[in-house]
Amino acid sequence: MTFPPLREDLRGLEPYGAPQLDVPVQLNVNENPYGPSAACIADIAASVAQAAASLNRYPDREFVELRAGLATYLSRDTAAAGWSITPEQVWAANGSNEVMLQLLQAFGGPGRTAISFAPTYSMYPEYARDTHTRWVQGRRAEDFSLDLDAARALVEAERPSVVLLPSPNNPTGTALPPDAVGVLCEAVGEAGIVVVDEAYGEFRRADTLSALELLPTHRNLVVTRTMSKAFAGAGLRLGYLAADSAICDAIRVVRLPYHLSAVTQATALAALRHTEELLGQVDTLRAERDRTVAWLRSEGLTVADSDANFCLFGTFADRHAVWRGLLDRGVLIREVGPEGWLRVSIGTPEEMAAFREALVEVRREL
Amino acid sequence: MTFPPLREDLRGLEPYGAPQLDVPVQLNVNENPYGPSAACIADIAASVAQAAASLNRYPDREFVELRAGLATYLSRDTAAAGWSITPEQVWAANGSNEVMLQLLQAFGGPGRTAISFAPTYSMYPEYARDTHTRWVQGRRAEDFSLDLDAARALVEAERPSVVLLPSPNNPTGTALPPDAVGVLCEAVGEAGIVVVDEAYGEFRRADTLSALELLPTHRNLVVTRTMSKAFAGAGLRLGYLAADSAICDAIRVVRLPYHLSAVTQATALAALRHTEELLGQVDTLRAERDRTVAWLRSEGLTVADSDANFCLFGTFADRHAVWRGLLDRGVLIREVGPEGWLRVSIGTPEEMAAFREALVEVRREL
Repeated sequence: MTFPPLREDLRGLEPYGAPQLDVPVQLNVNENPYGPSAACIADIAASVAQAAASLNRYPDREFVELRAGLATYLSRDTAAAGWSITPEQVWAANGSNEVMLQLLQAFGGPGRTAISFAPTYSMYPEYARDTHTRWVQGRRAEDFSLDLDAARALVEAERPSVVLLPSPNNPTGTALPPDAVGVLCEAVGEAGIVVVDEAYGEFRRADTLSALELLPTHRNLVVTRTMSKAFAGAGLRLGYLAADSAICDAIRVVRLPYHLSAVTQATALAALRHTEELLGQVDTLRAERDRTVAWLRSEGLTVADSDANFCLFGTFADRHAVWRGLLDRGVLIREVGPEGWLRVSIGTPEEMAAFREALVEVRREL
Repeated sequence: MTFPPLREDLRGLEPYGAPQLDVPVQLNVNENPYGPSAACIADIAASVAQAAASLNRYPDREFVELRAGLATYLSRDTAAAGWSITPEQVWAANGSNEVMLQLLQAFGGPGRTAISFAPTYSMYPEYARDTHTRWVQGRRAEDFSLDLDAARALVEAERPSVVLLPSPNNPTGTALPPDAVGVLCEAVGEAGIVVVDEAYGEFRRADTLSALELLPTHRNLVVTRTMSKAFAGAGLRLGYLAADSAICDAIRVVRLPYHLSAVTQATALAALRHTEELLGQVDTLRAERDRTVAWLRSEGLTVADSDANFCLFGTFADRHAVWRGLLDRGVLIREVGPEGWLRVSIGTPEEMAAFREALVEVRREL
């Protein structure tokens, strides 16, 4: 046996992660380009100082105050329908990816199946792998939408315990209509859960609905969110979900005790107090996204409709050459998605101008 | 099937965790009673403010600066032997329990076996359960030491991929002699790893050695530590390990990307800058521990030798009544360990005086 004695199925695998390169214009990992304001930073520092005074004590294992803050925030999306999300319906962890891992630890595992529909987020199969959950990958239609009949047929054939449905999808930006989510919740039934990953949910276009609206009618539905994108908190690592409280209680069996540090809880609560400011930046980014899509199309490129803070565009005979040409000009985007396509995150107006200029040059030269 | 569709083997299980009760004297979860100094808190707040300025960006996935800081700190224990621990030999995660989970994800799993020796830390079987690793529990000797011949025989019979050896052990406080660790590393061989959990390592008595000293001679050895206890950072959730760099590289395959937030990295680095102050408090606690052991023995009680910031004492015909009597007097300790024993964490001199007074009263009344 070779040393170290890593599990046989993990040997030779590369750790997940985009290259972290030091480049002037970073449009590769869908970060929010706007940092917190001075007021928000001061609030975070003061909150952490307060938490640090009792840092020798374990944090609130149930993060009661944070769950309440997240419930209040999510209830903005359900208020019009006349109901609100309670703290008992909220769970959080260190990034959406810990939320997903916990969901698969609780509801997946050996002898159980998880499915998603490609092209989609490349971490999903890793969550399945790391929890020994059987992984079945369906396919999306040519335009990256979900073929609902085919999706339902796959669910009925595979009887998954977990269905992962990102909306908007990464890397395509495609949102799911809520009635499609409802149909799949019905098809899965109570033997499984349907996880709608709304990591980019706040960037959805005005006529796109959140799956949160379906929570009262489908108790096997889980909607996940993150503070990484809309709240400009990628460095904070705070993912969360809304679901039936029985689902939250079930996750508590597999969560590591005290998984959310006092510092994380304090920082997240401080950021939530600046929701208005941060969502204002989301509106700016949505407008810049729409301008970017329009410009790419005006250049004769194909662009997937995007409800996210990125867009997938193409197609290129040699996408790597385009990616490389942009990088040579100081613009880092992501070579991801189906062959021929590239993904660009939405940055500041200045960053997007640099991207446009570089792309025009690269296409002229290739 | 009942809803929610939790895995069958998890149904009806209670989440891990001691009761979080609001009591004047909290001596139940081995926290350090001394909070950070005003200077340390100010340093943490300033460091987090600096990190928050770019909170919209993902954190350093490889936490290079923190690994270097932890390596420098650990090298205090190896300097006398003329060598130092490098950053590549260090790994960290959100609490020792995430470190342990990652170790079992990488080196345990279906078809593999982990072993430890009871009485010991009650989270170990949960890490095994959550990674579908077969769990074998050996026994310690009557005095809570490890019967090395029996331990070696169990290793040879079970061929474990992971051996978990806390030193000092929780809840007994018992340290392992390094030569015992060496013998078990040899017995396990390169088909497995031996994890010496030194969560309480800094509290060891002057003549007790750290397993760090064995790293150059046993490349299947992993030594874990935490900032929760000696660094008074239970609220920070920062566990770490030292091992062969190939073991750290292997863990990277299963770690969730960006698992350590920018805020966690900044706070941990700030705390490391106050190492001298924090280790001064450790010395205070070691002296208080020794006084507590001596006092309990002078009261006619049996106390396990302790190299930790707690001690296990007894035995009581009705330990629950003693625990309850102390709680009625505002002193919360832990009902844990073999039947008849109780565990008390070492607090401030005032807290230990309250504990002694309450215990005398309770014993008089029972």
